[in-house]
Order: sequence, then structure tokens, then C-alpha cells
Amino acid sequence: MDEISTEWVAEPDLDDPAFVEGLPGVGHVGKLVAEHVIEEADSEVVCRIHSEHFPPQVTVDDDSVAELAAAEIHAVETEGRDLLVLTGNHQAQDNVGHYRVTGAFLDVAAEFDTTDVFALGGVPTGELVEDHDVVGSVSSADLKEDLAEAGVEFRSEEPAGGIVGPSGLLVGLGGKRGFDAVCLMGETSGYLVDPKAAKAVLAVLEDLLGFDVDEEALDDRADEMEEVVSRLQDMEEGPSPGDEDLRYIG
Amino acid sequence: MDEISTEWVAEPDLDDPAFVEGLPGVGHVGKLVAEHVIEEADSEVVCRIHSEHFPPQVTVDDDSVAELAAAEIHAVETEGRDLLVLTGNHQAQDNVGHYRVTGAFLDVAAEFDTTDVFALGGVPTGELVEDHDVVGSVSSADLKEDLAEAGVEFRSEEPAGGIVGPSGLLVGLGGKRGFDAVCLMGETSGYLVDPKAAKAVLAVLEDLLGFDVDEEALDDRADEMEEVVSRLQDMEEGPSPGDEDLRYIG
Amino acid sequence: MDEISTEWVAEPDLDDPAFVEGLPGVGHVGKLVAEHVIEEADSEVVCRIHSEHFPPQVTVDDDSVAELAAAEIHAVETEGRDLLVLTGNHQAQDNVGHYRVTGAFLDVAAEFDTTDVFALGGVPTGELVEDHDVVGSVSSADLKEDLAEAGVEFRSEEPAGGIVGPSGLLVGLGGKRGFDAVCLMGETSGYLVDPKAAKAVLAVLEDLLGFDVDEEALDDRADEMEEVVSRLQDMEEGPSPGDEDLRYIG
Amino acid sequence: MDEISTEWVAEPDLDDPAFVEGLPGVGHVGKLVAEHVIEEADSEVVCRIHSEHFPPQVTVDDDSVAELAAAEIHAVETEGRDLLVLTGNHQAQDNVGHYRVTGAFLDVAAEFDTTDVFALGGVPTGELVEDHDVVGSVSSADLKEDLAEAGVEFRSEEPAGGIVGPSGLLVGLGGKRGFDAVCLMGETSGYLVDPKAAKAVLAVLEDLLGFDVDEEALDDRADEMEEVVSRLQDMEEGPSPGDEDLRYIG
Repeated sequence: MDEISTEWVAEPDLDDPAFVEGLPGVGHVGKLVAEHVIEEADSEVVCRIHSEHFPPQVTVDDDSVAELAAAEIHAVETEGRDLLVLTGNHQAQDNVGHYRVTGAFLDVAAEFDTTDVFALGGVPTGELVEDHDVVGSVSSADLKEDLAEAGVEFRSEEPAGGIVGPSGLLVGLGGKRGFDAVCLMGETSGYLVDPKAAKAVLAVLEDLLGFDVDEEALDDRADEMEEVVSRLQDMEEGPSPGDEDLRYIG
Repeated sequence: MDEISTEWVAEPDLDDPAFVEGLPGVGHVGKLVAEHVIEEADSEVVCRIHSEHFPPQVTVDDDSVAELAAAEIHAVETEGRDLLVLTGNHQAQDNVGHYRVTGAFLDVAAEFDTTDVFALGGVPTGELVEDHDVVGSVSSADLKEDLAEAGVEFRSEEPAGGIVGPSGLLVGLGGKRGFDAVCLMGETSGYLVDPKAAKAVLAVLEDLLGFDVDEEALDDRADEMEEVVSRLQDMEEGPSPGDEDLRYIG
Repeated sequence: MDEISTEWVAEPDLDDPAFVEGLPGVGHVGKLVAEHVIEEADSEVVCRIHSEHFPPQVTVDDDSVAELAAAEIHAVETEGRDLLVLTGNHQAQDNVGHYRVTGAFLDVAAEFDTTDVFALGGVPTGELVEDHDVVGSVSSADLKEDLAEAGVEFRSEEPAGGIVGPSGLLVGLGGKRGFDAVCLMGETSGYLVDPKAAKAVLAVLEDLLGFDVDEEALDDRADEMEEVVSRLQDMEEGPSPGDEDLRYIG
Repeated sequence: MDEISTEWVAEPDLDDPAFVEGLPGVGHVGKLVAEHVIEEADSEVVCRIHSEHFPPQVTVDDDSVAELAAAEIHAVETEGRDLLVLTGNHQAQDNVGHYRVTGAFLDVAAEFDTTDVFALGGVPTGELVEDHDVVGSVSSADLKEDLAEAGVEFRSEEPAGGIVGPSGLLVGLGGKRGFDAVCLMGETSGYLVDPKAAKAVLAVLEDLLGFDVDEEALDDRADEMEEVVSRLQDMEEGPSPGDEDLRYIG
């Protein structure tokens, strides 16, 4: 195997697609959005990216077939912009790998003459979040106006620790390669899988790209998580006084 | 030394051999089977694979001779299929190394025009196992029928955490290279070396490949382990009530 | 992206510039000096060095623009020697990367026909420091006389643990490549950001290179840190008797 | 800098030299022997080996000159065999580096048409050692007879954990490259620097190679360590009953 190999499964004819990344991360916000869009809209796998920098393992599917660790890029046709949606279960396990795998992601985007890259994720607040703002960072300041109109907030030097991993690199490396690259981060506690933060990010994305998917599945998951949170709060309220800070949970 | 070097010791004339991997892992199940077959059947070392990705060390043999860290592939002639049996004491120490060393294993299989790859291992249950089922995962769903007839169980999305290390990669990378690759995992507690799980896996392998080796040595090791377990249970039954869950042992 | 890439932003016409490194390290001494000189003197960014060996991340600036992890080299014109000042927020994350990134720094120095390399840092004493001596290490013993005249102290086999990271490598690799390379280390407790140690190192550098920058900003930061230390000492003096050893603070 | 670079300092005319390695390790036995021979006999530095796989640092010498991390090979002329003695303060920091740096050491040995490689070290016993046996491991069984005559002990499959690091690799890789390679390991507690174990290894080496160096310096260090041990034993004998097991010391 090559250090990174892109296995092409389909070569769909997409019209000016936007590249959307939703790999695992804070609150699984990006991954929830990516998987939701893939499931609700008309989609097919375009390619799988394997790499020596991924963990040395296979996952076993429902048919007992072993699948080599991979990131997958799906073509999604919507009533608005066509999408290339990147998701998966794995990240590169070393620094050099992060840079090179992200480079391979951008190669696929370039293959489809994509100009717009959206990296989706969460930004941890350390507290239960009621209103899920979506915070943005951009490869170039002139991208901010359109995003602000769609409700994205821009805050000076935030997130303070920068953006780590593939989301950050897609904007950093993407910008250097001439993409209009944006990171959209839903505010989330950081302790729990957060479908509500995912909904907030999805709403911004739909607004920007002119599509609309059914949100019932995300709502159902949000309801499940509400119950989890409410049970955790009950436990907190027992012997010690409860508060909305989940710092010691999960 | 090259990054990976294959030192050829013999070039046996094998007829359509099956490639069988039994490196150290959960319950040492794969390694027990591989070493047992090598010892009981007519076998010779075919090649040793050294790699910069193995630990930087030598082992010292009974004649005080230092042997560079290696994986060994043995040719085994049986009354059924000929075998190429891979075993050893070492694994690659980094992700990239795991991928590349597994690639070198498959190169040897390809050298002998092998079509079938069997990766042997254990699957941990967290409890003492009475009936040692053998769970399978495959590179392609059409391999399942023959395996199921030989008693292999297929369970949707199991093992849940996937298959990590060379066994997983042999199936994942092997499948991509066109091998019919199978992982056979004997159920085992995960806490102890498990010759009984090894016997269960060996029985499936013998059935599939039409050979039969004496099992006395494995039975003897199984008896030894029975005693170890029984002594551990006695200890458990002292002050605190004993149960069959060994979660806190070893 | 290449393993290391140098992105040129300007090509200033410098006259026999001295190369000055101030990356993050003990007491942030080197970084404080470098950033202070860049801000107080007439300076511009010359190049940004990106590397797969840096952390896989971006920082977000006050305009919400994501900046790929980088080290920056600035041209600084002074009334004395021209300067090339290296600073940044990141270091290589692995051994090999440290060597290669330092090599790229020296390549930039060579590009400007620099002969003199100054690596700035702190040397930890483990105690509050009143008089901030500046300790030196050199690529060649004949560099010591001029430095000693500027007040640099030379102590046999100190620092005892050697000099780790880019400062050490700039002197070690720099010397091998024919640069006159010097490491100037301000004595500092090692527990706190130390603008006073930075002032001591800056004074030596100004003396050696014949320039003079306003020090008010460093004085202000020094005053802030004084207050922090004084509050820490008050806390110490509560239940337990206070002393000047900050071993348990920070 | 190259990944590994050998900086030649002298090209002495040696007659059939034996290559002797004494890098830091268990009880510093090998390093003590190597440094002692270099100091007591007529020696000069032949080359320094630098590597990106060494720690990214310099050491500072008594003249405040920074020396890039290196291993050094010295030519030593004795009344018996000429020697190439390898020592230093650093080891490779990763697996691949260990293999490659050891390869570079053997390249130097090959440059001088060396046939015999002696890797010196300690073997930990976990208890205070009175009689310092020297245990051997060889690249080829026919080397054992001469060594046994010089007092080397050979024990089946010992050390049980193999020989890790450059000493092991010099024998493992050296044997593969056609050297007669031997590892001589002085028994030592494993908890303290052990000049007595070094004396035992030195005696074997002198016997094998026909040279004889003054041992006063090693005796002095041995006396110092005796005092350290005796003070440690006094401390042990206070509240709890003392014994010769130093398991909990150092």
C-alpha cells in the first residue's frame, strides 16, 4: 500500500460542489452533521482514503466483512449546491500524517474543481449550552460577510487554543492552496455527544448552500441526549447541590 | 539493513499453500495454534522477516546465540493443504510499521501464489469461557458459507472495536490485494493464555484445510491452565464470594 | 505541502544581518526579547516556515482568520546591525523534526549571507533571581572574548543538562555549517514568564549589535510579574513560613 | 544535515582492530569500561556520528563550547590488539533510529576491516552482586569456546528478555553482516553505577585482546560506590530490618 491511497468507487458528475468535512471531534458535532446529510439526502460513496497513518485496524460491518480503516467521501445531490461530504471513524495518529491525509482530502476536492471548503466541528464551552451559537474561522477575511449574514459569529482570537486536527488543517492548508475555506464550530459543553449543536451547524450550512434536509433523526437523538443530561443532573442534585456545570461528568 | 528485509532460508515446493498467521495477541490464541502446528507437523523455516519497525533487540536462544527480532514463516506439509505458517515474538512498534510489515507478509504469500489467508486470534469476552466459539470476519461476504459449515460464527459488527494489529490488517490489506482473507477468533476470557480457545480455532482450521495434528501438547497446556484458573478461583472464594468473572485477575 | 516549506513574504535588502532566535522556552525569555525587538523597531515579516513536524493546527487571529502553524522570520532595521528575528508559537513535535526545522532556519540565515547566529533563551535556577546574569555557550571558543566584554558569563559545563531544542541545535548545527553561533541564556527561576531576564539578555544583545530599543513595554510586563510574585509570596506567608524558593508554585 | 552523518576527525593506521562498544546502559558498565580504556591507553577521536534520531540538543563542554549530540569512536593502540572504542552520552530515541545508527557504527567498523565486534554492557540481577560474572551472547555458536576460556559464562536463553538497544543490535545486525559479534554483560544489581562489574568485563576483554590498562581509576570509583552502598544499607537498617536487596533504592 502507498502511504496514502485513494480508492475511487464512483465518479459522479457534480456541479460546482462544496466540500464538507465532518470527522469525529468535540461533541461529535461535525460527524453528526455529515452523517445526517449523507443519510437524509441522495448520496453515494465517491472514494475511500486509506493511510498508513490511520490506526492499523479493520472495522467489521453488519455482514462480518472487515473494512480497512478509511475516511470516506460521499457525493450528495441537493436542491441547492452539490456536496462532497467527508466523514469516517479514524484520524491520522501522528503529526506528519495529519498534514498528509488532509492534503489528500484537498486533492479530492481539487479533483472536482471545488472552491469552497467547510470544516464542521464543535467548540467546547465547559458548561451546558442552551443557545448553540455557531462560531466561525476563515482562510480569508472577505469570507466573513456572507457567513455573518447566515448567523455565524466571529470572535477575535477564538477559539483561544486554535483549531486542532483535520478541521484546522483544512482551513490552514486549504487557504494556502487557494480554497475559500471556513471552519464552522457549534458551541457545545464538550462533555457529551451534542445533536443540538449539530442542528445549529446544519442550519447555517443549509442556509449557505441552499438545501434543506429532514431533521427528525437529529431531533430524536437530541431528545435521547436530553434525557441523559436530565438523569445526570438528578444525580448531581442528590447529596451535593446541583448546578449546570458538568465539569465533573463524563 | 533495509526498512524491511526478508531473509530466505529455504525455498520449499509447496502445492497451493494456505497462509496462516499466528502472532502474539489476545489469549495468545493465534500463536498457540501456529506453534502447535509447526511442532506437530512436518515443517521448516522458509524465511525470516526483519524490520526497523520491530523492537531494537535480539533474543538469546538456548545456545546463547543472539537472534535479531524477526517474524518467521514456516512451510508445513500436511495430508491436506500445504501451509505457510507465520509466527514470532514481535510486532511492529508504530502504525506505519504495522502496515508495511503486513505488506511484507502478504508479499511472501504472493510469492507462493497463495490465494487463502487465515489470520488467527482471540476475541476477549471478559468472562471465563466454557464453550469456545470461533467468531469470523472476512474480506468478502461470499467466503462465509464454507466457514459457517466448518462451525465459524458470524455476528453483525463484532468484534465491536474492530480487529487491531496484523490479524486485522491481513484481512483488510489482503482483501484489497485480492486474497480470500479470513480472521478466525477464538472466544477467550482475555486474561489468560488460553489453549482451549486455541484448540477450538485449530479444529476449524483442520476442518477447512483437511489436516489433522496430534493435540496432546495443547491438551497438556490446557490442563496446566485449568489448574491455574482453579487456584485463582479458590483464592477468590476466601474472604469475598467467588464468581466466574475474572475481571480482577491477571 | 512539503515536509518543510518556506513561504517568502518580502525580500528586504539587509546589510550583514545577525540572525536572532527567540522561540518559546524557559521563562519565555527568548520569545519576550524577540517580540519586543520586532514591536519596538522598524520590522516586517520576511518569511513563514511551515512544517509537517509542527502541531497539526491553526491559530485564529483577531480578524478570525486561521493561520497555519508557522515560525516567522522578521527583518528588523536598527541604527546598528540589521537583524533577522525568528519567533513563533510552535516547535517541532519530534526529534527528526527539530533537526530539520532548525536546518530550514539556518537556510534562511544563509540566504542573507548571515555569519552570526544568536539563540536566546533562559536558564532555570529553581529560585527567585535578583541579578539576572546572562550565561553563554558558543560554537567556537574564540567567540567568547567579545561576549565576555559585553557581560556574558561563561561557566564550565553549564547548563549541566545541555541546551535542548532549537536554541541548542542552532548553535550545534550552526557551528557545523560555519556560522559563529552563540546561545545567550538569561538566568530565571524557571517557574514564571520573566521580563527581567529578557531585559538582561536584550541589554547584552544591544551592546553586541549596537542598537537600542525603548524598554518601557518590557518594564511594564516586569512590573506586572512583580505583582504576581508578590501575591504568591503573600499566599506562602500565610499558614507556612514564606521563603524565596518558588519550587511549589506554578 | 543528513539523517546520520559521520564526521571524520582522524584516519589512524590501525592493525586489525577490534570494535568495542560502551554506550550508556545497565549500571553504566559498558560506558565505564569504554571511557576507562580511552583514558588509560593511547587514544584519539576517529569520528563523531551525529543523527536526527539523537535527542535535539547540545552538551556544553568545560570551555563553554556547545557540542552537538554525538556518539564518538576512538582509536586506541595497545600492546595487544588495536581497538576502535565507541562511546557517547546519547542513544537513538526511536526504533528506526536504533537500527540505522547501529548500522552506521558497523559501517565505521567495516571501514577499518574489523572482523570482531564486542558490545559491552550489564545484566541486571535485582540484588547486590558479590562475584561479578560476565555473561555472553554471540552471533555464532563457534565463538563460544574462546570466550569460555576467558571466563565468559553462557546460559541458555539468558538474559530472558533478550538484549535491547545498540548492544543487542550490534550482535544481531553485526552477525548478519558477517562480523564475529559478541555481547559481554557484567552482572550488576541494576540500581547503581557499577565499577566492579566494569572491572570484571574489562578483565575478560583484556584477556581476549591481549592488553592491560591501569585499573586504579576504576578501583577509586568502586571504593566511592562501596561507600554509597554502605550508607544506603545503614539507612535501611534503621527502623526496618536491613537486607542486601536494594529493590527499593535508587
